[in-house]
Amino acid sequence: MKREIRILGIDDMPFSFGEEKVDIVGVVMRGGIYLEGVLKTTIEVDGKDATEKIIEMVERSKHKEQLKLIMIDGVALGGFNVIDGEKIYLETSLPVITITRKKPDMQKIKEALRKHFDDWEKRLKIIEKGGIKEIKLNYPVYIKHFGIDEKDAVDAIKISIIRGAIPEPIRVAHLIATGIKKGESTGRC
Amino acid sequence: MKREIRILGIDDMPFSFGEEKVDIVGVVMRGGIYLEGVLKTTIEVDGKDATEKIIEMVERSKHKEQLKLIMIDGVALGGFNVIDGEKIYLETSLPVITITRKKPDMQKIKEALRKHFDDWEKRLKIIEKGGIKEIKLNYPVYIKHFGIDEKDAVDAIKISIIRGAIPEPIRVAHLIATGIKKGESTGRC
Repeated sequence: MKREIRILGIDDMPFSFGEEKVDIVGVVMRGGIYLEGVLKTTIEVDGKDATEKIIEMVERSKHKEQLKLIMIDGVALGGFNVIDGEKIYLETSLPVITITRKKPDMQKIKEALRKHFDDWEKRLKIIEKGGIKEIKLNYPVYIKHFGIDEKDAVDAIKISIIRGAIPEPIRVAHLIATGIKKGESTGRC
Repeated sequence: MKREIRILGIDDMPFSFGEEKVDIVGVVMRGGIYLEGVLKTTIEVDGKDATEKIIEMVERSKHKEQLKLIMIDGVALGGFNVIDGEKIYLETSLPVITITRKKPDMQKIKEALRKHFDDWEKRLKIIEKGGIKEIKLNYPVYIKHFGIDEKDAVDAIKISIIRGAIPEPIRVAHLIATGIKKGESTGRC
């Protein structure tokens, strides 16, 4: 895999109880290191539009033709607005990796979905797509991958980590998302 | 000068006619390359609070103790909300460099200030502080510097440019500011 690969990293802004919408931030990085662009779109908290909004954000971007890969922080954004990585891949032709530092607790997720959403089975089915794999680098991370095999997914993650466990495009998206919303960036992805 | 120097780069978001407030974005970069934090504050379009708001943003930041230098895109933010680099330096003890790609046209600035503001002389005096110096690197840039001599200012700029004419902390602040406001980052600083 080329070190100069263009990756789009995506994370959501933090949101408070009562907020209906939340912005999500995309960053285009070359080689996972050099920032080339920043994108933003808005989704509904606990809504169903995250997948579609990400596809739109990618399709309208002037960086689209250069992009080779999408990395997303987690299996859902804006609460339980679940990400259909397979659909994003099929519609944009860009491979998708979702990545988390903690292993998603599928039992807990299932219970929460069941409690809060009439369409919980549909959401759960999307979250379960592809299964979750543990990747052991310097730190373990948990990924799903669509349109890219595991070996290439691991290579892409390795290329784009400078330090710590999280690829730069996601780390930077997280810093921007928290910094813009709260006035100062915080925490870990 | 240490290559690992922490620099805060500042730029404002674009704004439209009729908007009264505008957000400004600060990015903390190590060695002008590795993003460590994102800050945001809000100022009045054509107001008088930019200097004070920048001082506040710096003072409340958890990165304050690590910061060694502030770089600001231009001599005013949010229209004609002029930046008093000397005051920022005196209050924060951090050297300040303002930097532009185009030479500020002092005659035009003076006319615009005169036309729009009763306190135009006060604003002009702030803009004129320190004078403007042309620095010839690969591309020329125009700077003011407070609390740092010209040689060190040039060194800091050189250290923090990866490509083009603009130091990374300002380039990245600009990408974030335009991307978050417009949905996709645009243009040059």
